[in-house]
Amino acid sequence: MGPTDPAGVPGSLSLLKYEGLGNDFLVMVDLEGERELTAELARAVCDRHRGWGADGLLRAGPAPASGEAFAFSLRNADGSEAEMSGNGLRCLAHAVLDEGGAVAGPGEGFDVLTPAGRRRVTVRRRGAGEAWMSTEMGRPRVSGDDGRCNVGHGQLLVDVGNPHLVVLGPDPSTVDVAGLGPVLSAQAGALTGGVNVEFVALGPGRDELTMRVWERGVGETEACGTGSVAAAAALAHWGRVGPKVTVHQPGGAAEVELRPDGGAVLTGPSRRIGSCTTVLGKPGERR
Amino acid sequence: MGPTDPAGVPGSLSLLKYEGLGNDFLVMVDLEGERELTAELARAVCDRHRGWGADGLLRAGPAPASGEAFAFSLRNADGSEAEMSGNGLRCLAHAVLDEGGAVAGPGEGFDVLTPAGRRRVTVRRRGAGEAWMSTEMGRPRVSGDDGRCNVGHGQLLVDVGNPHLVVLGPDPSTVDVAGLGPVLSAQAGALTGGVNVEFVALGPGRDELTMRVWERGVGETEACGTGSVAAAAALAHWGRVGPKVTVHQPGGAAEVELRPDGGAVLTGPSRRIGSCTTVLGKPGERR
Repeated sequence: MGPTDPAGVPGSLSLLKYEGLGNDFLVMVDLEGERELTAELARAVCDRHRGWGADGLLRAGPAPASGEAFAFSLRNADGSEAEMSGNGLRCLAHAVLDEGGAVAGPGEGFDVLTPAGRRRVTVRRRGAGEAWMSTEMGRPRVSGDDGRCNVGHGQLLVDVGNPHLVVLGPDPSTVDVAGLGPVLSAQAGALTGGVNVEFVALGPGRDELTMRVWERGVGETEACGTGSVAAAAALAHWGRVGPKVTVHQPGGAAEVELRPDGGAVLTGPSRRIGSCTTVLGKPGERR
Repeated sequence: MGPTDPAGVPGSLSLLKYEGLGNDFLVMVDLEGERELTAELARAVCDRHRGWGADGLLRAGPAPASGEAFAFSLRNADGSEAEMSGNGLRCLAHAVLDEGGAVAGPGEGFDVLTPAGRRRVTVRRRGAGEAWMSTEMGRPRVSGDDGRCNVGHGQLLVDVGNPHLVVLGPDPSTVDVAGLGPVLSAQAGALTGGVNVEFVALGPGRDELTMRVWERGVGETEACGTGSVAAAAALAHWGRVGPKVTVHQPGGAAEVELRPDGGAVLTGPSRRIGSCTTVLGKPGERR
């Protein structure tokens, strides 16, 4: 028996769900521009007990007449707007490909308009609900070098559109991320409402990093796309890695390429969880 | 553009999602008995980042030829089997009604076979994705009266198919549920793997209770159906409430009726969140 929305239900909305490295998103593919990405809608559908549940709600909206395939927008589960998310952009591009809103085979790609600017997406592999894509992430800007990296420890501030503090130290599995994360975030981002904090160690292999992330306003997460770029940029600044870096995180591994022109490219997986309809008009009461 | 499952996806499963008092469930209405409720499936679909996400996966399976409308089964998000859940039984009955697997107007009902025995479900109201139903919850058994209730505090053990410790004390909003819950759970349930703990105060009105719940193996939850029954039975045992009790919880209010024959009936809301399909064959890697 297939599920249907019974009579009496006050309208429904179709959504998709994707995840990349454990970062999960509900997705509206709305290339005709028929839907608004409101804070209220994001909070309702992203609520993990009274909605479908996700880290954020993505929308692929119509692109202006400037050559992009679609326009990226994202609201976090709390309703706030996000400028950019590496995992989110891959998930959104994957959804647009699955829905036939763009066509690109392996090695091919398209441009996407994001609040942070135009970003190129390139398909590496795709099949059976899974994809592996590369996304342009802009130019990370490193600052705050305190010169202490010579002893195997150090901190750098890195701006990847959003602010990061990269902390090079011992094996991240031994770090009290829940305890140190908020303290360092508040110290380093006293004027900006906090920063994201990456706890990074070199290895296990050459040009590989192992990382755990504390995201401002969220806490520890399984993986962070901009954090992966920040970590690679910091370690490259210190001369500890080459221009192609694999970043191992609890949610899986991402690859970062630091190009000669200063731009960063993030490559990672995305996976289709499925499609859903959600009952509108009664988002449910919150406690 | 409506979502579709693209070619290349290795099969998909249709599910529904409902919630009652913030307790959320994915639901399989499978009256033909075509699907199995495996621990692996429950873990995959209930994973909040790599699946759709829920507290548990419910199945309405075919009833034996003994008059029940369907057979209730439930696996928690960790894959374990649950004997009974008041919120879950309402959600499952709501789904079967929505899908046309049973018919009952206001005041009418049907029997459901659960691992804890046959349970009657009665529809109170239903419309626009929401319902209000009553479910038989068996006979709560009170034990462990330590006689200290006279001073406005007290503890009782109550068996509602699963074990509960009801603690009558100050305003639950002032109680350190996260700190006290696991300690009391372990003390009271040393031989049984812990109990659920209800922190209860009388009021605000007559025959009303205000409650917060610590569930074993889960932590604090927004509401608990068996816990509501346990609390009402304990306070009735102490003579503090009559046979019809409203239990206010962070997720909303439930009503408990304690019948002269010793049986308890729980009444509360349920809400349809929507329907989904989930991609099978690749449940995703856990960290």
